[in-house]
Amino acid sequence: MKTEFVLPGEIEKRSFEIIAAELKERNIKLDNKLAPVICRAIHTTADFDYAHTLVFSEGALDKLKELIKSGAAIVTDTNMALSGINKKTLAVFGCEAKCLMADETVAKLAKEQKTTRAAVSMEIAASWNKPTIFVVGNAPTALMKLYEMYQAGLYKPAFIIGVPVGFVNVVEAKEEIMETDIPYIINKGRKGGSNVAAAICNAVLYELSGRKCV
Amino acid sequence: MKTEFVLPGEIEKRSFEIIAAELKERNIKLDNKLAPVICRAIHTTADFDYAHTLVFSEGALDKLKELIKSGAAIVTDTNMALSGINKKTLAVFGCEAKCLMADETVAKLAKEQKTTRAAVSMEIAASWNKPTIFVVGNAPTALMKLYEMYQAGLYKPAFIIGVPVGFVNVVEAKEEIMETDIPYIINKGRKGGSNVAAAICNAVLYELSGRKCV
Repeated sequence: MKTEFVLPGEIEKRSFEIIAAELKERNIKLDNKLAPVICRAIHTTADFDYAHTLVFSEGALDKLKELIKSGAAIVTDTNMALSGINKKTLAVFGCEAKCLMADETVAKLAKEQKTTRAAVSMEIAASWNKPTIFVVGNAPTALMKLYEMYQAGLYKPAFIIGVPVGFVNVVEAKEEIMETDIPYIINKGRKGGSNVAAAICNAVLYELSGRKCV
Repeated sequence: MKTEFVLPGEIEKRSFEIIAAELKERNIKLDNKLAPVICRAIHTTADFDYAHTLVFSEGALDKLKELIKSGAAIVTDTNMALSGINKKTLAVFGCEAKCLMADETVAKLAKEQKTTRAAVSMEIAASWNKPTIFVVGNAPTALMKLYEMYQAGLYKPAFIIGVPVGFVNVVEAKEEIMETDIPYIINKGRKGGSNVAAAICNAVLYELSGRKCV
């Protein structure tokens, strides 16, 4: 046997110790405040690139924590991201996360408007009369729609977690959001994903609920 | 504007063209048969490491396709992986995917047995009287339980998609499965994830339903 059974809580603890040790080996010094989020993204992907590419607007984490504590709405661009977010912890703060991607109306509107379901989802969430955190782990078109509404002076998202992954419009759509004054956490470049989006949400939720990993 | 709107189908097409071009630039020549799976893992992660680390037991894809065509059961170790699998396409083949992780009995048994819910989930799925594809994107303990049952001569999984991600027991648990004669697709090393697990399933489903990407 090459493996030895380790209990789940202990696995997480050891994993974060390994991540901390390997960051040190690589001479990477993270900002103390941001470390829990960055380390959880690394924990979720086993990819140390996130230490270099995850960027935060000024005061982003405080802003995001405030929003969660005040029961902001959360919308994701994939059911996978929604599925990965710790909804028990979210409920403690009176928050609810939704994903509209499987909604039949969304599919119908996207077809009619020759756009993506993700873009339509963002537009619908923008019409909620409530501060909303946009969690984008997949579709650059979701970020593009948010940027378009912002540029037109129609809507300003309370927060964007912008970590879509991919090869077409992904890098650029992230750059556009970073040029606005919308508070954000973004992963520069091509990488990201629904798993990373959920990990970022969970890192903040765990911080808020006092579960220390870093 | 740095971005230009591209329709979803076109995004996928262009993305796979970019992946093919960059594989060529890197002098990486993929096996024709395996390329759709490997390219979809790269598409899902924007990480070309998968071209080097995804490994397949002999005849793995034919075996997996046969299992799906004959309506095998699928069990995942996360709801996130389950959520990412294209269930409409799966249903065409009479297959059903399940995840037992949120099951209350599973949580209870895991607590009693001082083990993980993932390990208990695998044990329960092993008791289904049906060929089962085990899709592991998160918990090395799921692979460890499958290996333990196999070694004890209690059970042999029909197929394992073994792509858990992480720092503790992940590398080793994958190696153990690769030493058996269980048909597998495994991502060597630390990387993987629920998104990669779902992407591998979807790549095979798309192949079976004639949706060509590569």
